[in-house]
Amino acid sequence: MANKAIKDIPYKIYLSENEIPSSWYNLRADMKTKPAPLLNPGTLKPMTAEELEGVFCKELVKQELDNDTRFVEIPKEIRDFYKMYRPSPVVRAYCLEEALGTPAHIYYKFEGNNTSGSHKLNSAIAQAYYAKKQGLKGVTTETGAGQWGTALSMSCAYLGLDLKVYMVKISYEQKPGRREVMRTYGAEVTPSPSDTTEAGRRILAAFPGTNGSLGCAISEAVEYAVTHEGYRYVLGSVLNQVLLHQSVIGLEAKAALDKYGVKPDIIIGCAGGGSNLGGLIAPFMGEKLRGEADYRIIAVEPASCPSFTRGKYAYDFCDTGYVCPLAKMYTLGSQFMPSPNHAGGLRFHGMSSILSQLYDDGYMEATSVEQTRVFEAAEQFARTEGILPAPESSHAIRVAIDEALKCKETGEAKDILFGLTGTGYFDLSAYKSFNDGTMTDSIPTDADIAASLAKLPKVE
Amino acid sequence: MANKAIKDIPYKIYLSENEIPSSWYNLRADMKTKPAPLLNPGTLKPMTAEELEGVFCKELVKQELDNDTRFVEIPKEIRDFYKMYRPSPVVRAYCLEEALGTPAHIYYKFEGNNTSGSHKLNSAIAQAYYAKKQGLKGVTTETGAGQWGTALSMSCAYLGLDLKVYMVKISYEQKPGRREVMRTYGAEVTPSPSDTTEAGRRILAAFPGTNGSLGCAISEAVEYAVTHEGYRYVLGSVLNQVLLHQSVIGLEAKAALDKYGVKPDIIIGCAGGGSNLGGLIAPFMGEKLRGEADYRIIAVEPASCPSFTRGKYAYDFCDTGYVCPLAKMYTLGSQFMPSPNHAGGLRFHGMSSILSQLYDDGYMEATSVEQTRVFEAAEQFARTEGILPAPESSHAIRVAIDEALKCKETGEAKDILFGLTGTGYFDLSAYKSFNDGTMTDSIPTDADIAASLAKLPKVE
Repeated sequence: MANKAIKDIPYKIYLSENEIPSSWYNLRADMKTKPAPLLNPGTLKPMTAEELEGVFCKELVKQELDNDTRFVEIPKEIRDFYKMYRPSPVVRAYCLEEALGTPAHIYYKFEGNNTSGSHKLNSAIAQAYYAKKQGLKGVTTETGAGQWGTALSMSCAYLGLDLKVYMVKISYEQKPGRREVMRTYGAEVTPSPSDTTEAGRRILAAFPGTNGSLGCAISEAVEYAVTHEGYRYVLGSVLNQVLLHQSVIGLEAKAALDKYGVKPDIIIGCAGGGSNLGGLIAPFMGEKLRGEADYRIIAVEPASCPSFTRGKYAYDFCDTGYVCPLAKMYTLGSQFMPSPNHAGGLRFHGMSSILSQLYDDGYMEATSVEQTRVFEAAEQFARTEGILPAPESSHAIRVAIDEALKCKETGEAKDILFGLTGTGYFDLSAYKSFNDGTMTDSIPTDADIAASLAKLPKVE
Repeated sequence: MANKAIKDIPYKIYLSENEIPSSWYNLRADMKTKPAPLLNPGTLKPMTAEELEGVFCKELVKQELDNDTRFVEIPKEIRDFYKMYRPSPVVRAYCLEEALGTPAHIYYKFEGNNTSGSHKLNSAIAQAYYAKKQGLKGVTTETGAGQWGTALSMSCAYLGLDLKVYMVKISYEQKPGRREVMRTYGAEVTPSPSDTTEAGRRILAAFPGTNGSLGCAISEAVEYAVTHEGYRYVLGSVLNQVLLHQSVIGLEAKAALDKYGVKPDIIIGCAGGGSNLGGLIAPFMGEKLRGEADYRIIAVEPASCPSFTRGKYAYDFCDTGYVCPLAKMYTLGSQFMPSPNHAGGLRFHGMSSILSQLYDDGYMEATSVEQTRVFEAAEQFARTEGILPAPESSHAIRVAIDEALKCKETGEAKDILFGLTGTGYFDLSAYKSFNDGTMTDSIPTDADIAASLAKLPKVE
């Protein structure tokens, strides 16, 4: 039985409500090489604000294009909403450290303690707020695993905004839990492809039995927004504006650690589109860019969808339907599909332009991990720390444990911080395949990736 | 859009870790009329410690029978575990108050912010700890909806204790989520009835296609414990020891409110077996029993299983299989079954002996509510407060909203405290029937209840 010594640092470091950041931090302001601009898919010229405003809210377009303003004030209404579930704690993983027998100190910023179950709520409420402020009737979006759709439905319910969610058909059928949470929050959830849009009808005609795809759901959500008065489209990751809103994660984490004089040696985050990682590292990376401090920063991606570690830094479409602007990013090609046995999220083929530029400039590392090893870490974490982690977050747990075990060998007491982005309550079919011993790893071949990269658009 | 004034009381009142209570409070010490003792079902004489120790751990038997010790120290190991998810916040429901337009101040103690999703963890870790301390190999239990089984699996994983869970067969099949959480925590989960016990085999032979019942699962869990060296049986509600452990809820709630000088006028809790209600009200009821303060205390039960409001105060079996001791309690009769369309938990036919005695002595009120009105309250709460509540907890939400709306009529700014026992992530089939508009109410007839009460055991 555990017999822990009294420690100075509590299990959970909570900030008070008035320590919720009053501004988001815009990492781009400190980047010497700015992220490449979005390109118009027709003209291949940088997207103008006017062009973007047909799809996105005005204020969000401004945030998307603003590479210079360092701090963006968080409106009071958003801060009030944040108070319902923030500040989120930085937790000292005493029990995990003890189970590992490591001299390392492990900390995690836990973003799953809200009904959406993930960090996505931080940007969802911001995007919904600006839509409401612009006088819009509603917003549209797509959702795959459902974290983003859930977060957005909570935000829209709070503000009295209409929400249409296009949910990938197979998720709609296989994840009824998330679907019902969204419906409870008043969202209209449509399985995609549907007959409510041109794009959906086209796909249905060509592939009558299709399970749907994120790319198709994006196309439907964008089409609904641009063809209906008073609607705009919103997106939960990848975009610069999303990383801006998610900086609240890192700002709080840094403020909490600063209270105890802890400077992390290593900062670890899972990376799909980059919203969590970009948010968690923001203020630390800012210090690094300004030469004020150094941190080892590690992006962790699934071996089944390894955009940083095996992709190419190039302009590519963000969607499979070629309707969205082109972004310069580490990408596996917009037609890349992770193997069907890939569990959980982190299945986007590309990566935030901001993180792609930072990675290309050598400010951070990346590594990929197989899903069976990820679930081994998830199980160990659940049993010792009492939180059932999301498969996405468990990628970061895996690497944090690996780094802590290296410390055990070397005897170093490093401070390790990782982002625990969410809970796994809606991922129990993946846990079941792990518990049953039927989970296998799925790593794309070089030929798979080369074939997908061969279809990259030509942009000089 | 909300435009809230600055308030002195934060959205969430957190205690610090060193303010986690160091002792549980034993309400029985302040009761003039003590709860009636458990009776041996064979002899109808009070159960002795020796008799109980065949089924339960020694230290827990002591706590079960101790009507006199006012404060029981919480062992350091349990306090360390509590630090992983406690103190839990008292939340001021500013957004709900605004939506209702009430002058009332609504507070809730939120016990769902842990992976088990409910307050059950508070007693699970205590019971697992004493089993470990006694040198046992493992414990057995039954679970219906699965909250208790989940909490116990987390506790046993933490302490390295073996756990056998008998899960009612229909829940095992229809609630695969909870089943997988328990398996992830290393519990062996067996659908009940099973062929692993005499009791199970007997039922299977008599009713080959049965869906199982809580009564049968209890019989199997008890049988396994008494026939296997190194095992004992544990139970998540009803017992005096469980209410003792759950007093941590009320002690924290009172300490948090005391910080801001708030004395609740009304305290509201849902009541199934009584573990949450008994815990939440403990220190407040203590003041009331000692004549130091007065509080209006309301137990809320489902109209489909109304033991306080339509049951009888009498000795009855705690299980349908007649293997457990008899308890004196408000009961609908051990053969009473809520209608199949009853959603969620709170389906126990009886009630904690402690609460039954207090209710009989006039120290608290009770009311029952229909499930459609409960889910209306759940939806409103979810949309305004950002937490998806468990159906059980939503019974308390319903009555808190009703009381706040009465304040709106009278203009009174009452302070209302209720217990938000858990989250509804594993109850989405119930939410679906509400969202679909197919949920109906199920209220037993007087004849139903009379028929069930006619089978009460004869105890003079």
